[in-house]
Amino acid sequence: MIEQIREIAQKTKVASRALVNVSTLQKNQFLNHLAEILESDKEEILAENRRDVSRADQSGIKKSLLDRLSLNEKRIREMSQGLQEVASLPDPVGEVINGVKRPNGLIIHRVRVPLGVIAIIYEARPNVTIDSIGLGIKSGNALLLRGSSLALFSNQILVKKAKQALTRSGLPSDSVNLLGSGKHEEVELLLSLRGLIDVVIPRGGGELIQTVVKNSQIPVIETGVGNCHIYLDASANFSMAEKIVINAKTQRPSVCNACETLLVHQAVAADFLPRIGKSLIEKGVEIRGCEKTKALIDDAQVADEEDWYAEYLDLILAVKVVAGIEEAIEHIDRYGSHHSEAIVTEDYQSALRFLQEVDAAAVYVNASTRFTDGGQFGMGAEIGISTQKLHARGPMGIRELTTTKFMVYGLGQIRE
Amino acid sequence: MIEQIREIAQKTKVASRALVNVSTLQKNQFLNHLAEILESDKEEILAENRRDVSRADQSGIKKSLLDRLSLNEKRIREMSQGLQEVASLPDPVGEVINGVKRPNGLIIHRVRVPLGVIAIIYEARPNVTIDSIGLGIKSGNALLLRGSSLALFSNQILVKKAKQALTRSGLPSDSVNLLGSGKHEEVELLLSLRGLIDVVIPRGGGELIQTVVKNSQIPVIETGVGNCHIYLDASANFSMAEKIVINAKTQRPSVCNACETLLVHQAVAADFLPRIGKSLIEKGVEIRGCEKTKALIDDAQVADEEDWYAEYLDLILAVKVVAGIEEAIEHIDRYGSHHSEAIVTEDYQSALRFLQEVDAAAVYVNASTRFTDGGQFGMGAEIGISTQKLHARGPMGIRELTTTKFMVYGLGQIRE
Repeated sequence: MIEQIREIAQKTKVASRALVNVSTLQKNQFLNHLAEILESDKEEILAENRRDVSRADQSGIKKSLLDRLSLNEKRIREMSQGLQEVASLPDPVGEVINGVKRPNGLIIHRVRVPLGVIAIIYEARPNVTIDSIGLGIKSGNALLLRGSSLALFSNQILVKKAKQALTRSGLPSDSVNLLGSGKHEEVELLLSLRGLIDVVIPRGGGELIQTVVKNSQIPVIETGVGNCHIYLDASANFSMAEKIVINAKTQRPSVCNACETLLVHQAVAADFLPRIGKSLIEKGVEIRGCEKTKALIDDAQVADEEDWYAEYLDLILAVKVVAGIEEAIEHIDRYGSHHSEAIVTEDYQSALRFLQEVDAAAVYVNASTRFTDGGQFGMGAEIGISTQKLHARGPMGIRELTTTKFMVYGLGQIRE
Repeated sequence: MIEQIREIAQKTKVASRALVNVSTLQKNQFLNHLAEILESDKEEILAENRRDVSRADQSGIKKSLLDRLSLNEKRIREMSQGLQEVASLPDPVGEVINGVKRPNGLIIHRVRVPLGVIAIIYEARPNVTIDSIGLGIKSGNALLLRGSSLALFSNQILVKKAKQALTRSGLPSDSVNLLGSGKHEEVELLLSLRGLIDVVIPRGGGELIQTVVKNSQIPVIETGVGNCHIYLDASANFSMAEKIVINAKTQRPSVCNACETLLVHQAVAADFLPRIGKSLIEKGVEIRGCEKTKALIDDAQVADEEDWYAEYLDLILAVKVVAGIEEAIEHIDRYGSHHSEAIVTEDYQSALRFLQEVDAAAVYVNASTRFTDGGQFGMGAEIGISTQKLHARGPMGIRELTTTKFMVYGLGQIRE
């Protein structure tokens, strides 16, 4: 099997070389062609998707997973619109980031170029196939996709459509390839192909990400886990604090930028917690609190050590009363996942200190953590939210799917 | 042993938190204090270094390694001057890379911040200890150093001096720590400390780098292997070509940006190769050529497949006659290490094509590959030359030892 995977990766690499010189116009044509094909061939796509869904249903997977696997007309339209939106984004390739003329006359430009071949490893969500293809090709990269075996028929038909659109736009059809055996060892083999693949991006839950990080010999961009905190400072405006906490916890609890732990300054705990607790419980939130919280919110459960680490992705909130900003920052540092952290305060020094000292991809004063998102940050579509520090941190748009190259223009200079 | 290493890493991490808020002034004071201490305590340092050198000499290591291990007054002065130069560089921390005010009033700044804890794994070169400390602290990072056991006494005394300078400057002395057991398994344990160490940088030969890349669960910045090519196009100016080839091969053959393979367009091979061959041989260069080269340079050896992959780091040059720019680019892509690649040409289209299509950290027209260097590129001191595509590519200065953080200023915004 390794030889087969290597061969596919090799073909993808060859295609990636051709993509380097492709014009923005041609890439946008591809995106628009694919958007059209998805709409015009939707019956065929839905039929293949039904094969996956019925097989998965018989195997008895969870309803929520089945829902993510299922396509319908609306979802196909969304995929198609997503491609058109990516077409409308500026092309990051070719940007001259900076440039100098050195004393010896050498002209040195640092230019943005595609990464090359990007491998995406993901779960049973066929929309990720189209989304990855759109962002990858727009940024000039070739793609090696490895979706879940549960979505194999769906992914196969979507990649077939992508290849049609590639050919119609005059781009190499090997710019997008799908690994198809569905076997687990396939992932391990893929992660060993250093030199053929430039970067691996796992898109999915914590377990998938950890598997990729532990086994990969190729550089990985880690996305996702969010154990996000909101700290209510002693000077917080109560009604602002309440709105932000309710929004960050309940507006969409299943996503990585939702709030998982609330930290409250002890000076305002007796005033704030009973009222915020009531509002949260009315919204169906289960509260797991420290001893002090428990004394202030009757219906709270008792939190244990595990709760401080938890990314619930659900209507559950851990709550802790802290002595002040120092303890809040320490708690976030110890238990957090360095994703999105917020303080609610009217105090200038607390605001500045929180922004400076909390180590996370995004740090907020007086706003909901839910804003950590490529679209909300004005970057256009995103491929994920990086919680690592190398290469990209926070929401990653197509610009983050590029690298740089120094182009040096000489007139015969040699080094003395 | 793992507990002991974990404890040192933990202490270093705590120190890294304090470094985030340290002023540029204070970091520069540290650099200047350490520069002074190295000069004033040089006898003590040289005595410890002699213990390493005599032990290594008895064990019979190669003369070149012994030379790199040895300190003397001149080398200590160079280390001291290096620290003063780093002090004079602008501080990358705090730079606002970009910022927007969103339609909802959120103010979003992308700000440069330290990486946190950087682990450096290196060979028996005590100057790397001081160099890493200087660049690391200037960029606001704490350092976990793991040098060769051959240089243990030297590294211990240098780190002791660094801790004195840290304390004298009011910085936590745990900002710099050295792993001391010298055992091989220490490296493996170090590379498993995900969460405590933010990035690992191996500084040394190809074997060391490969070991780190294969075993690390922490993100790695790969530096260094350079199999660099010069391609002489049909339109090349002969005297410029000759100067560039001689410079790139002979000015300092032991470094990664030296030229290892010369590719010559077949139309000018008969004219260029005998003359360049003669000049190279006069400079003591051994030539290993393809069949066509052999026919044009009497004293050439025959190159085999291995030669095209070789990073000689020595007065040896592989030479191949190619059909044209297409074959040259393919050869570079297949055998090169994506470090520094040059074309010598007077043809506009060849120049543009080479710059666009060759996939390397630095691509040159009409200049020696020897310029790929932080100092030569105007970036100040460098920590290495990255040949990977993520995070940093090409010469890495202190700016590349940072990451970014989104700082978001709100007035109570929530997501609708």
